[in-house]
Amino acid sequence: MKRICVLGHHAPSSGEFSINDLAGGAGRMDILCRCIGSAFFLSHGIRRDVEVFLILLGPPRPPVTIRFSGAEIRSLNPDERSTGSLIKKALSIPRGDAFRESGPGVAVRKGGLSKLLVEHSFAVLCENGADIRKAAVLPENVILSDHLDLTTEEEESVSGCPAYSVGPLSLHANAAISLLLNEHDRRSAGWN
Amino acid sequence: MKRICVLGHHAPSSGEFSINDLAGGAGRMDILCRCIGSAFFLSHGIRRDVEVFLILLGPPRPPVTIRFSGAEIRSLNPDERSTGSLIKKALSIPRGDAFRESGPGVAVRKGGLSKLLVEHSFAVLCENGADIRKAAVLPENVILSDHLDLTTEEEESVSGCPAYSVGPLSLHANAAISLLLNEHDRRSAGWN
Repeated sequence: MKRICVLGHHAPSSGEFSINDLAGGAGRMDILCRCIGSAFFLSHGIRRDVEVFLILLGPPRPPVTIRFSGAEIRSLNPDERSTGSLIKKALSIPRGDAFRESGPGVAVRKGGLSKLLVEHSFAVLCENGADIRKAAVLPENVILSDHLDLTTEEEESVSGCPAYSVGPLSLHANAAISLLLNEHDRRSAGWN
Repeated sequence: MKRICVLGHHAPSSGEFSINDLAGGAGRMDILCRCIGSAFFLSHGIRRDVEVFLILLGPPRPPVTIRFSGAEIRSLNPDERSTGSLIKKALSIPRGDAFRESGPGVAVRKGGLSKLLVEHSFAVLCENGADIRKAAVLPENVILSDHLDLTTEEEESVSGCPAYSVGPLSLHANAAISLLLNEHDRRSAGWN
Protein backbone atom coordinates (compact mmCIF):
# COMPACT_ATOMS: atom_id res chain seq x y z
CA MET A 1 0.00 0.00 0.00
CA LYS A 2 1.20 3.49 -0.89
CA ARG A 3 -0.20 6.40 1.08
CA ILE A 4 -0.14 9.96 -0.15
CA CYS A 5 -1.07 12.81 2.17
CA VAL A 6 -1.72 16.27 0.72
CA LEU A 7 -2.10 19.35 2.90
CA GLY A 8 -4.66 21.89 1.70
CA HIS A 9 -3.91 24.96 3.77
CA HIS A 10 -6.88 27.00 2.65
CA ALA A 11 -9.14 24.18 1.48
CA PRO A 12 -12.52 24.51 3.19
CA SER A 13 -13.50 22.05 5.89
CA SER A 14 -17.18 22.26 5.02
CA GLY A 15 -19.04 21.44 1.82
CA GLU A 16 -20.15 25.05 1.37
CA PHE A 17 -18.05 25.70 -1.71
CA SER A 18 -18.86 25.85 -5.40
CA ILE A 19 -17.49 23.21 -7.76
CA ASN A 20 -17.53 26.00 -10.35
CA ASP A 21 -14.93 27.95 -8.34
CA LEU A 22 -12.51 25.28 -7.09
CA ALA A 23 -9.45 27.44 -7.79
CA GLY A 24 -10.88 30.60 -6.22
CA GLY A 25 -13.47 30.62 -3.47
CA ALA A 26 -12.79 26.94 -2.68
CA GLY A 27 -9.29 27.64 -1.32
CA ARG A 28 -7.37 25.99 -4.16
CA MET A 29 -9.35 22.78 -3.92
CA ASP A 30 -8.40 22.38 -7.61
CA ILE A 31 -4.88 21.41 -6.50
CA LEU A 32 -6.22 18.63 -4.27
CA CYS A 33 -8.50 17.38 -7.05
CA ARG A 34 -5.57 17.10 -9.46
CA CYS A 35 -3.61 15.21 -6.81
CA ILE A 36 -6.40 12.65 -6.61
CA GLY A 37 -6.28 12.23 -10.39
CA SER A 38 -2.51 11.82 -10.48
CA ALA A 39 -2.53 9.38 -7.57
CA PHE A 40 -5.16 7.01 -8.93
CA PHE A 41 -5.43 7.12 -12.70
CA LEU A 42 -3.74 4.84 -15.15
CA SER A 43 -4.84 5.03 -18.78
CA HIS A 44 -7.06 2.02 -18.37
CA GLY A 45 -7.68 1.66 -14.69
CA ILE A 46 -7.25 2.80 -11.12
CA ARG A 47 -4.23 2.24 -8.89
CA ARG A 48 -5.85 -0.05 -6.34
CA ASP A 49 -2.79 -0.04 -4.06
CA VAL A 50 -2.95 3.69 -3.31
CA GLU A 51 -4.66 5.64 -0.53
CA VAL A 52 -4.80 9.44 -0.52
CA PHE A 53 -5.42 11.54 2.56
CA LEU A 54 -6.52 15.12 1.87
CA ILE A 55 -6.07 17.27 4.94
CA LEU A 56 -8.31 20.31 4.78
CA LEU A 57 -7.13 23.19 6.91
CA GLY A 58 -9.41 26.02 5.82
CA PRO A 59 -12.51 27.31 7.65
CA PRO A 60 -14.89 26.68 9.27
CA ARG A 61 -13.90 23.62 11.38
CA PRO A 62 -10.40 22.40 10.52
CA PRO A 63 -8.64 20.06 10.48
CA VAL A 64 -10.58 17.46 8.53
CA THR A 65 -9.16 14.43 6.70
CA ILE A 66 -10.76 12.83 3.67
CA ARG A 67 -9.43 9.41 2.71
CA PHE A 68 -9.70 8.05 -0.84
CA SER A 69 -9.03 4.30 -1.02
CA GLY A 70 -8.10 2.98 -4.46
CA ALA A 71 -9.08 -0.56 -3.49
CA GLU A 72 -12.70 0.38 -2.94
CA ILE A 73 -13.40 3.53 -4.87
CA ARG A 74 -16.11 3.61 -7.53
CA SER A 75 -17.26 6.36 -9.85
CA LEU A 76 -13.99 8.29 -9.74
CA ASN A 77 -13.46 10.41 -12.84
CA PRO A 78 -10.27 12.21 -13.75
CA ASP A 79 -11.68 15.73 -14.10
CA GLU A 80 -11.35 18.23 -11.26
CA ARG A 81 -15.01 19.00 -11.11
CA SER A 82 -16.20 15.46 -10.45
CA THR A 83 -13.55 14.95 -7.77
CA GLY A 84 -14.66 18.25 -6.25
CA SER A 85 -18.16 16.80 -6.02
CA LEU A 86 -16.89 13.74 -4.13
CA ILE A 87 -15.05 16.02 -1.68
CA LYS A 88 -18.14 18.17 -1.25
CA LYS A 89 -20.21 15.08 -0.50
CA ALA A 90 -17.67 13.81 2.04
CA LEU A 91 -17.82 17.17 3.81
CA SER A 92 -21.60 17.07 3.96
CA ILE A 93 -21.92 14.05 6.28
CA PRO A 94 -21.52 14.14 10.07
CA ARG A 95 -17.92 13.50 11.07
CA GLY A 96 -16.43 11.96 14.14
CA ASP A 97 -13.05 10.78 15.35
CA ALA A 98 -13.10 7.64 13.18
CA PHE A 99 -13.39 7.48 9.40
CA ARG A 100 -16.93 7.28 8.12
CA GLU A 101 -17.78 6.56 4.49
CA SER A 102 -19.57 9.14 2.35
CA GLY A 103 -19.51 6.70 -0.56
CA PRO A 104 -17.52 3.67 -1.76
CA GLY A 105 -13.84 4.28 -1.00
CA VAL A 106 -14.29 7.84 0.30
CA ALA A 107 -14.34 8.52 4.03
CA VAL A 108 -14.01 11.50 6.35
CA ARG A 109 -12.99 12.18 9.94
CA LYS A 110 -11.98 14.99 12.26
CA GLY A 111 -8.28 15.58 12.72
CA GLY A 112 -5.29 16.20 10.52
CA LEU A 113 -1.59 15.62 10.14
CA SER A 114 -0.64 14.90 13.74
CA LYS A 115 -3.25 12.15 13.97
CA LEU A 116 -2.10 10.58 10.70
CA LEU A 117 1.56 10.65 11.78
CA VAL A 118 0.69 8.53 14.80
CA GLU A 119 -0.82 5.87 12.54
CA HIS A 120 1.75 5.65 9.72
CA SER A 121 5.35 6.56 8.99
CA PHE A 122 5.77 9.12 6.24
CA ALA A 123 8.48 10.73 4.17
CA VAL A 124 8.15 14.30 2.91
CA LEU A 125 8.30 15.21 -0.78
CA CYS A 126 9.82 18.67 -1.03
CA GLU A 127 12.25 20.78 -3.02
CA ASN A 128 15.34 20.21 -0.93
CA GLY A 129 15.11 16.49 -0.23
CA ALA A 130 17.36 13.71 -1.51
CA ASP A 131 16.90 12.62 -5.12
CA ILE A 132 14.13 10.02 -5.20
CA ARG A 133 15.84 8.12 -8.03
CA LYS A 134 18.84 7.51 -5.81
CA ALA A 135 16.83 6.22 -2.83
CA ALA A 136 17.88 2.67 -1.97
CA VAL A 137 14.29 1.98 -0.91
CA LEU A 138 11.45 4.19 -2.11
CA PRO A 139 9.17 5.63 0.55
CA GLU A 140 5.74 3.97 0.55
CA ASN A 141 4.04 6.88 2.30
CA VAL A 142 4.63 10.56 1.48
CA ILE A 143 3.38 13.99 2.52
CA LEU A 144 3.11 16.89 0.10
CA SER A 145 1.93 20.44 0.51
CA ASP A 146 -0.37 22.40 -1.80
CA HIS A 147 0.84 25.72 -3.26
CA LEU A 148 2.00 26.89 0.17
CA ASP A 149 5.04 25.89 2.19
CA LEU A 150 4.60 23.84 5.33
CA THR A 151 3.85 25.97 8.38
CA THR A 152 6.39 26.11 11.21
CA GLU A 153 4.18 23.78 13.22
CA GLU A 154 3.93 21.29 10.34
CA GLU A 155 7.68 21.46 9.80
CA GLU A 156 8.16 20.50 13.42
CA SER A 157 5.70 17.62 13.11
CA VAL A 158 7.62 16.11 10.19
CA SER A 159 11.12 17.01 11.36
CA GLY A 160 11.94 13.36 11.97
CA CYS A 161 10.73 12.20 8.54
CA PRO A 162 13.10 11.57 5.64
CA ALA A 163 12.78 14.09 2.81
CA TYR A 164 12.91 13.37 -0.91
CA SER A 165 12.82 15.47 -4.05
CA VAL A 166 11.54 14.42 -7.47
CA GLY A 167 13.70 16.77 -9.51
CA PRO A 168 15.72 19.97 -9.65
CA LEU A 169 12.72 22.30 -10.13
CA SER A 170 9.85 22.90 -7.75
CA LEU A 171 6.69 21.42 -9.26
CA HIS A 172 2.99 21.29 -8.53
CA ALA A 173 1.99 18.58 -6.09
CA ASN A 174 0.16 16.46 -8.67
CA ALA A 175 3.23 16.37 -10.94
CA ALA A 176 5.36 15.27 -7.97
CA ILE A 177 2.89 12.42 -7.34
CA SER A 178 3.14 11.28 -10.98
CA LEU A 179 6.93 11.28 -10.71
CA LEU A 180 7.00 9.31 -7.46
CA LEU A 181 4.57 6.68 -8.74
CA ASN A 182 6.52 6.37 -12.00
CA GLU A 183 9.63 5.58 -9.97
CA HIS A 184 7.66 2.88 -8.11
CA ASP A 185 6.33 1.52 -11.43
CA ARG A 186 9.82 1.37 -12.92
CA ARG A 187 11.32 -0.46 -9.98
CA SER A 188 8.42 -2.92 -9.80
CA ALA A 189 8.78 -3.68 -13.52
CA GLY A 190 12.57 -3.88 -13.49
CA TRP A 191 12.92 -0.83 -15.72
CA ASN A 192 15.73 0.73 -13.69
CA MET B 1 12.13 25.25 -27.52
CA LYS B 2 10.11 22.17 -26.60
CA ARG B 3 6.93 21.51 -28.52
CA ILE B 4 4.16 19.26 -27.25
CA CYS B 5 1.31 18.28 -29.55
CA VAL B 6 -1.80 16.66 -28.06
CA LEU B 7 -4.50 15.09 -30.21
CA GLY B 8 -8.06 15.56 -28.97
CA HIS B 9 -10.05 13.09 -31.03
CA HIS B 10 -13.49 14.18 -29.85
CA ALA B 11 -12.62 17.70 -28.67
CA PRO B 12 -14.96 20.18 -30.31
CA SER B 13 -13.66 22.48 -33.01
CA SER B 14 -16.09 25.26 -32.09
CA GLY B 15 -16.52 27.19 -28.87
CA GLU B 16 -20.05 25.86 -28.37
CA PHE B 17 -19.21 23.77 -25.31
CA SER B 18 -19.79 24.28 -21.62
CA ILE B 19 -16.82 24.80 -19.30
CA ASN B 20 -19.02 23.09 -16.69
CA ASP B 21 -19.00 19.87 -18.73
CA LEU B 22 -15.42 19.60 -20.03
CA ALA B 23 -15.24 15.85 -19.35
CA GLY B 24 -18.63 15.06 -20.90
CA GLY B 25 -20.27 17.12 -23.60
CA ALA B 26 -16.97 18.84 -24.43
CA GLY B 27 -15.40 15.67 -25.83
CA ARG B 28 -12.88 15.12 -23.03
CA MET B 29 -11.57 18.65 -23.27
CA ASP B 30 -10.60 18.13 -19.60
CA ILE B 31 -7.69 15.95 -20.77
CA LEU B 32 -6.34 18.72 -22.99
CA CYS B 33 -6.72 21.26 -20.18
CA ARG B 34 -4.66 19.11 -17.82
CA CYS B 35 -2.01 18.73 -20.51
CA ILE B 36 -1.70 22.51 -20.68
CA GLY B 37 -1.24 22.65 -16.92
CA SER B 38 1.40 19.91 -16.87
CA ALA B 39 3.27 21.45 -19.81
CA PHE B 40 3.56 24.96 -18.42
CA PHE B 41 3.36 25.08 -14.65
CA LEU B 42 6.23 25.12 -12.23
CA SER B 43 5.47 25.84 -8.59
CA HIS B 44 6.49 29.45 -8.99
CA GLY B 45 6.31 30.21 -12.66
CA ILE B 46 5.66 29.18 -16.23
CA ARG B 47 7.91 27.15 -18.51
CA ARG B 48 8.69 29.85 -21.05
CA ASP B 49 10.51 27.46 -23.39
CA VAL B 50 7.44 25.30 -24.11
CA GLU B 51 4.82 25.49 -26.83
CA VAL B 52 1.74 23.28 -26.82
CA PHE B 53 -0.36 22.50 -29.87
CA LEU B 54 -3.84 21.17 -29.15
CA ILE B 55 -5.32 19.52 -32.22
CA LEU B 56 -9.09 19.43 -32.00
CA LEU B 57 -10.68 16.75 -34.12
CA GLY B 58 -14.29 16.82 -32.97
CA PRO B 59 -17.23 18.48 -34.74
CA PRO B 60 -18.23 20.76 -36.34
CA ARG B 61 -15.23 21.86 -38.47
CA PRO B 62 -12.10 19.85 -37.68
CA PRO B 63 -9.18 19.88 -37.68
CA VAL B 64 -8.27 23.00 -35.74
CA THR B 65 -5.00 23.71 -33.96
CA ILE B 66 -4.66 25.93 -30.89
CA ARG B 67 -1.14 26.98 -29.99
CA PHE B 68 -0.17 27.99 -26.43
CA SER B 69 3.21 29.75 -26.28
CA GLY B 70 4.88 29.80 -22.88
CA ALA B 71 7.06 32.75 -23.86
CA GLU B 72 4.09 35.05 -24.33
CA ILE B 73 1.21 33.65 -22.37
CA ARG B 74 -0.48 35.72 -19.66
CA SER B 75 -3.31 34.91 -17.31
CA LEU B 76 -2.85 31.16 -17.47
CA ASN B 77 -4.16 29.42 -14.37
CA PRO B 78 -3.62 25.77 -13.49
CA ASP B 79 -7.25 24.74 -13.11
CA GLU B 80 -9.06 22.96 -15.93
CA ARG B 81 -11.93 25.38 -16.02
CA SER B 82 -9.87 28.51 -16.69
CA THR B 83 -7.88 26.75 -19.41
CA GLY B 84 -11.19 25.62 -20.88
CA SER B 85 -12.19 29.28 -21.07
CA LEU B 86 -9.03 30.16 -23.00
CA ILE B 87 -9.74 27.33 -25.46
CA LYS B 88 -13.34 28.46 -25.82
CA LYS B 89 -12.17 32.00 -26.57
CA ALA B 90 -9.64 30.79 -29.16
CA LEU B 91 -12.42 28.86 -30.90
CA SER B 92 -14.66 31.92 -31.00
CA ILE B 93 -12.51 34.04 -33.32
CA PRO B 94 -12.38 33.70 -37.12
CA ARG B 95 -9.69 31.25 -38.18
CA GLY B 96 -7.59 31.05 -41.31
CA ASP B 97 -4.61 29.10 -42.56
CA ALA B 98 -2.13 31.06 -40.41
CA PHE B 99 -2.13 31.34 -36.62
CA ARG B 100 -4.14 34.26 -35.28
CA GLU B 101 -4.03 35.32 -31.64
CA SER B 102 -7.11 35.16 -29.47
CA GLY B 103 -5.11 36.57 -26.57
CA PRO B 104 -1.48 36.83 -25.43
CA GLY B 105 0.27 33.57 -26.24
CA VAL B 106 -2.83 31.76 -27.50
CA ALA B 107 -3.44 31.42 -31.24
CA VAL B 108 -5.64 29.35 -33.53
CA ARG B 109 -5.61 28.15 -37.12
CA LYS B 110 -7.25 25.66 -39.45
CA GLY B 111 -5.46 22.36 -39.97
CA GLY B 112 -4.08 19.62 -37.81
CA LEU B 113 -1.35 17.04 -37.49
CA SER B 114 -0.25 16.76 -41.11
CA LYS B 115 0.33 20.51 -41.30
CA LEU B 116 2.33 20.52 -38.06
CA LEU B 117 4.49 17.60 -39.20
CA VAL B 118 5.59 19.61 -42.24
CA GLU B 119 6.80 22.42 -39.97
CA HIS B 120 8.57 20.51 -37.18
CA SER B 121 10.08 17.09 -36.49
CA PHE B 122 8.35 15.17 -33.75
CA ALA B 123 8.77 12.02 -31.71
CA VAL B 124 5.76 10.08 -30.42
CA LEU B 125 5.19 9.37 -26.72
CA CYS B 126 3.38 6.05 -26.48
CA GLU B 127 3.23 2.82 -24.50
CA ASN B 128 5.54 0.74 -26.66
CA GLY B 129 8.33 3.23 -27.36
CA ALA B 130 11.93 3.13 -26.13
CA ASP B 131 12.56 4.13 -22.51
CA ILE B 132 12.93 7.91 -22.43
CA ARG B 133 15.52 7.70 -19.64
CA LYS B 134 17.80 5.73 -21.92
CA ALA B 135 17.54 8.13 -24.87
CA ALA B 136 20.98 9.49 -25.77
CA VAL B 137 19.32 12.74 -26.77
CA LEU B 138 15.85 13.61 -25.52
CA PRO B 139 13.27 14.56 -28.13
CA GLU B 140 12.48 18.28 -28.10
CA ASN B 141 9.12 17.85 -29.81
CA VAL B 142 6.59 15.15 -28.96
CA ILE B 143 3.10 14.03 -29.97
CA LEU B 144 0.67 12.45 -27.49
CA SER B 145 -2.87 11.23 -27.85
CA ASP B 146 -5.78 11.83 -25.52
CA HIS B 147 -7.63 8.82 -24.06
CA LEU B 148 -7.91 7.20 -27.49
CA ASP B 149 -5.29 5.44 -29.59
CA LEU B 150 -3.98 7.07 -32.73
CA THR B 151 -6.17 6.39 -35.76
CA THR B 152 -4.76 4.33 -38.62
CA GLU B 153 -4.30 7.52 -40.61
CA GLU B 154 -2.45 9.20 -37.73
CA GLU B 155 -0.28 6.12 -37.24
CA GLU B 156 0.73 6.36 -40.89
CA SER B 157 1.50 10.08 -40.56
CA VAL B 158 3.92 9.46 -37.67
CA SER B 159 5.32 6.14 -38.90
CA GLY B 160 8.69 7.75 -39.53
CA CYS B 161 8.92 9.39 -36.10
CA PRO B 162 10.92 7.86 -33.23
CA ALA B 163 8.77 6.54 -30.38
CA TYR B 164 9.47 6.85 -26.66
CA SER B 165 7.80 5.62 -23.51
CA VAL B 166 7.90 7.24 -20.08
CA GLY B 167 7.40 4.07 -18.05
CA PRO B 168 6.09 0.52 -17.91
CA LEU B 169 2.43 1.47 -17.38
CA SER B 170 0.17 3.39 -19.71
CA LEU B 171 -0.58 6.78 -18.16
CA HIS B 172 -2.75 9.78 -18.83
CA ALA B 173 -1.25 12.26 -21.29
CA ASN B 174 -0.66 14.98 -18.70
CA ALA B 175 1.32 12.60 -16.47
CA ALA B 176 3.46 11.61 -19.46
CA ILE B 177 4.18 15.30 -20.09
CA SER B 178 5.29 15.77 -16.47
CA LEU B 179 7.61 12.78 -16.79
CA LEU B 180 9.16 13.95 -20.06
CA LEU B 181 9.78 17.48 -18.76
CA ASN B 182 11.25 16.10 -15.53
CA GLU B 183 13.77 14.15 -17.61
CA HIS B 184 14.65 17.37 -19.46
CA ASP B 185 14.97 19.22 -16.13
CA ARG B 186 17.25 16.54 -14.69
CA ARG B 187 19.56 16.50 -17.67
CA SER B 188 19.73 20.30 -17.83
CA ALA B 189 20.61 20.45 -14.14
CA GLY B 190 23.10 17.60 -14.23
CA TRP B 191 20.94 15.41 -11.98
CA ASN B 192 21.43 12.29 -14.04
